[in-house]
Amino acid sequence: MNSPLATLNTQWRLIARPAGEVGREHFQVTRPPLPEPGLGEVRVRNLYLLIPPSMRLWMNEKETYFPPQPLGEVMAGITLGVVESSQDPSLVPGDYVNGLGGCQEWFVAPAAQLQKISPRPGVPLAAYRSVLDVQGLTAWCGLTEIGRPQAGETLVVTAAAGSVGSLVCQIGKRLGLRVIGIAGGAEKCAWLRDECGVDGVIDYRHDDVAARLDALCPEGIDIVYENVGGPVMDMLIERLRFKGRVVLCGLVSSYNGGVTQNTGSLMTLVNKAARMEGFLVSEYLHRYQEVVGTLQEWVADGSLKYQIEVLEGLDSVVDAIGRVFRGQNRGVQLVKISDEGQR
Amino acid sequence: MNSPLATLNTQWRLIARPAGEVGREHFQVTRPPLPEPGLGEVRVRNLYLLIPPSMRLWMNEKETYFPPQPLGEVMAGITLGVVESSQDPSLVPGDYVNGLGGCQEWFVAPAAQLQKISPRPGVPLAAYRSVLDVQGLTAWCGLTEIGRPQAGETLVVTAAAGSVGSLVCQIGKRLGLRVIGIAGGAEKCAWLRDECGVDGVIDYRHDDVAARLDALCPEGIDIVYENVGGPVMDMLIERLRFKGRVVLCGLVSSYNGGVTQNTGSLMTLVNKAARMEGFLVSEYLHRYQEVVGTLQEWVADGSLKYQIEVLEGLDSVVDAIGRVFRGQNRGVQLVKISDEGQR
Repeated sequence: MNSPLATLNTQWRLIARPAGEVGREHFQVTRPPLPEPGLGEVRVRNLYLLIPPSMRLWMNEKETYFPPQPLGEVMAGITLGVVESSQDPSLVPGDYVNGLGGCQEWFVAPAAQLQKISPRPGVPLAAYRSVLDVQGLTAWCGLTEIGRPQAGETLVVTAAAGSVGSLVCQIGKRLGLRVIGIAGGAEKCAWLRDECGVDGVIDYRHDDVAARLDALCPEGIDIVYENVGGPVMDMLIERLRFKGRVVLCGLVSSYNGGVTQNTGSLMTLVNKAARMEGFLVSEYLHRYQEVVGTLQEWVADGSLKYQIEVLEGLDSVVDAIGRVFRGQNRGVQLVKISDEGQR
Repeated sequence: MNSPLATLNTQWRLIARPAGEVGREHFQVTRPPLPEPGLGEVRVRNLYLLIPPSMRLWMNEKETYFPPQPLGEVMAGITLGVVESSQDPSLVPGDYVNGLGGCQEWFVAPAAQLQKISPRPGVPLAAYRSVLDVQGLTAWCGLTEIGRPQAGETLVVTAAAGSVGSLVCQIGKRLGLRVIGIAGGAEKCAWLRDECGVDGVIDYRHDDVAARLDALCPEGIDIVYENVGGPVMDMLIERLRFKGRVVLCGLVSSYNGGVTQNTGSLMTLVNKAARMEGFLVSEYLHRYQEVVGTLQEWVADGSLKYQIEVLEGLDSVVDAIGRVFRGQNRGVQLVKISDEGQR
């Protein structure tokens, strides 16, 4: 939003790998001229930047499901934007697109790498950069394809008030599961209970998690949808029932480094013949239209609850990443890079 | 072997739960009169006692796949014995049986709880208390049902010279896998390479395990057959290929307490959409005849290699458990409680 005359781009480049928390000192801001699209390409103005917990992980040297962010390059980022100029017949100016637009105001990319969005009346644009995209698909496919739930089973979700977790809770309820959500703080827990309709909540910051789990899951846990890892995951694994399943979606507690699991807790996987399994949402892109289409209906009729927190301007990227890590955000964390109506 | 006139039994009872290593002070020896079988029961003289790594685990307070050993009771034990007197038509004196005979010279049990063995000529009796029973079934079913191997894939086995591990290595080779065995010490590694025919060995006591894994598995690992846990398991998980599998058979490094995994290494399960799964051999008892029958053929024709180490007398139980824990035994550890021909 700080582009006078809009002739210069604003780009956030990662110049150093953080050891723990991310800081302003790990970035350099550059202001090159606006890029021009070549044949088959489009220029997109970024509107929203998604801040997923895994964004911190991309900054590490080690390869994850994403290649490591190269130092000196524009920081990778999942964005929603509007096409400004096109050299490809499939997109025209004014079209909204999802893509890997990076931490910058404008970008140029092949049209084939972008996903056109047709916003439905009554559904805010920001929803398409949050629940109605990979996060919805991640929640749905992780729970159903890896968790393989049966109605009546008990599901425990960590980071349950988060962007993926809150969807897992609500999809779980619609599948007939008993759903327990673990989140940090009374406000998040109240939202899960009162709005998302979960059967029980645990505030990991203030409750005795083990005691609450024993009270809420006296027969044990059938499915864990795991986003966090660390000591709470040990407690969950130790309470798995025979043939229990741990859907490993993420382990955000380890992304800043230095968290351990108790090997003894993993022994429960043996004793209960249980399964812990990771997945990549990219395996399930063939279900995108079906899943996101259904979620869009639920958003439009108001039955699917979600929270989006928006920080204004690219300058808030570091703050936004920190908020996600400290669990200070409510629901999906977005950075608004520019206004829909600007320019 | 110290039963004068054989009118008194000798029983080892657990009287205190060990915090770390097992010692003589955790047991009390009692010498009650010989038990007499009631209707439907038999009296069995124990010949061989199996010392599996998990025996240490039964002594802990926490329930595993076995109920915790009650203090003051005869220590549980997996034995092979000979029927001495029978009050059930299904067994006659002289029959060999496998069962949960405990750490004692004689026991009485319902005939229905025992498994009759018909030793094949040329196959030593001790083999029926080791490879040709649950250990063979554990190796076979863990590898095939949980590992779901495809010919040409790379399998890494920990505790590879152990009773289960060495069978997994050889079954893996017969299934067309590339097999790497990890074991402690040059002698075990040489046996795996020269006798069991594995493709590569790593001596975790003397080799740089990570460097050796990189050299032996440059394309990564498809299947880990895990018996140990701890830091080496972290290294194995970190090298899993896409859709890799960790067959969790046991985590012996944790049985004495206090071992941790790196949560970050578990993140590889997410990044590679990989699976870690435990199992209980009791799920596969329907395959017992098929699997043990095949293994018996391979033992009889000399093509299946195995090692049995026998310590003499019930007094050596503590020593035997310690040897298994320190990895000092070669192959299956048995305690010989009495001679076949005795009495």
